[in-house]
Amino acid sequence: MQNNTEFNFRALLDGAIPGLSLDCVVFGYKNKKLHVLLVRFNISKVWALPGGFIPKNADMDTVANQVLLQRTGLDNVFLQQSRIFSSPDRMWDSNTQSRLAIDSLKSTWPESLTEELNAWFDQRFISMSYMALVDAEKAHPKIDFLSDACDWIPLDELPDLLLDHDQMIKEAHKQLRMKINSLPIGKSLLPERFTMSDLQSLYEAILDQKLDRGNFQRKMIRLGFLNRHEKLMTGAQNKAPYLYSINDEAYNELLEKGIGFS
Amino acid sequence: MQNNTEFNFRALLDGAIPGLSLDCVVFGYKNKKLHVLLVRFNISKVWALPGGFIPKNADMDTVANQVLLQRTGLDNVFLQQSRIFSSPDRMWDSNTQSRLAIDSLKSTWPESLTEELNAWFDQRFISMSYMALVDAEKAHPKIDFLSDACDWIPLDELPDLLLDHDQMIKEAHKQLRMKINSLPIGKSLLPERFTMSDLQSLYEAILDQKLDRGNFQRKMIRLGFLNRHEKLMTGAQNKAPYLYSINDEAYNELLEKGIGFS
Repeated sequence: MQNNTEFNFRALLDGAIPGLSLDCVVFGYKNKKLHVLLVRFNISKVWALPGGFIPKNADMDTVANQVLLQRTGLDNVFLQQSRIFSSPDRMWDSNTQSRLAIDSLKSTWPESLTEELNAWFDQRFISMSYMALVDAEKAHPKIDFLSDACDWIPLDELPDLLLDHDQMIKEAHKQLRMKINSLPIGKSLLPERFTMSDLQSLYEAILDQKLDRGNFQRKMIRLGFLNRHEKLMTGAQNKAPYLYSINDEAYNELLEKGIGFS
Repeated sequence: MQNNTEFNFRALLDGAIPGLSLDCVVFGYKNKKLHVLLVRFNISKVWALPGGFIPKNADMDTVANQVLLQRTGLDNVFLQQSRIFSSPDRMWDSNTQSRLAIDSLKSTWPESLTEELNAWFDQRFISMSYMALVDAEKAHPKIDFLSDACDWIPLDELPDLLLDHDQMIKEAHKQLRMKINSLPIGKSLLPERFTMSDLQSLYEAILDQKLDRGNFQRKMIRLGFLNRHEKLMTGAQNKAPYLYSINDEAYNELLEKGIGFS
């Protein structure tokens, strides 16, 4: 376990905007299941989304990218604002997990800052939730001073979470379902080359429904954002599936326009 | 012109979150053009989006709804978070219009609060931009203590605006184009009954491109969210267009799912 006192609480109080934070719902795709990246507070063992406070003169998107980089080692990932959460009862005493987390956190505070830190954490925090899509194979989850685990957790096996982080995941998943229905958004979740069956499995995991194979393939081909390559040679040649990659130019045009009237 | 001193600056300083605001990009559809609702500061005559500060214990979506209600008299309108704007140089001295506005505003400040208000307005403000779609025929634009005009301005005739409000409009318009490409989002912008040609004109105004009449009609009918009614009798019966209305159940299902895999 890391030494908690390494966290610079003085810098937090002096340099960050009070009452404002951000959290990142990072989706990855592993073993044909959609996963989300979670961190676990040390001492309390409470799970939460990776996130951070906002330095007084920072751009929030930049901070979100930094959180992603720190937690996954990845830069230039698909990262979008999801939704701002600002319920008046977004407080650290709002549920059991949050109370556990803050109580343990308090035990690490320098005595000289106790009063100021109590005031800081007693206020309602408004938090901007981001959604990120990353290739889980390329990500290297990393802990920090306040956490002792950072792991990919399948969406259907989520533990109890800090604050309203479960709602943030639910909202981001809803937005992802909506987006993948109208955009070829899968790129960031896939390896560079994949089969049509890989792509369909990804869509099925996100949409949480089975799709018709023929319709799916026709639709994807028609959208025109796939390059077809050699066959994947694993079994009998006549059954070997083609490998595909994404045509960036066509893909970006679809991302910009949506598929509705194309 | 209203009396500026009616604005309660003391309440602002005591009750609102420093450094955080929201702005509303309200789209309406008039004379076959997309319009946006703008307010004009009195004294400085600077145009801006309607918006507001955030009371310390308020939910931001609730505040956005209140701004909409105050400015248009409309409740329950289509209102969504668009994007948070948090550039480090989002300051009132960042462009000419903003400097004009703040200088005039300063002339209305009670002397006893000058120092506090200077500090308040000298900080960087992070602002959540909302997008709303309203039926322009039903809206009743209203001024307040700080403004002497509140009008629908066509998107292609926008004046210079406060801060980065032009970017907020651009972003909301981009999101609207994207959404209407994948959702039957037009409902809030249309009267209860409309012709297929009305609907097509709306889509063309939002997408800023001509659409093929036959394709458009087939697509809309196929989506299954339109109820067909009697013909609109204005000319020869054989040329009279059908009137349509929106089937709320089918419409809401499409809003939830998107049209991609339906």
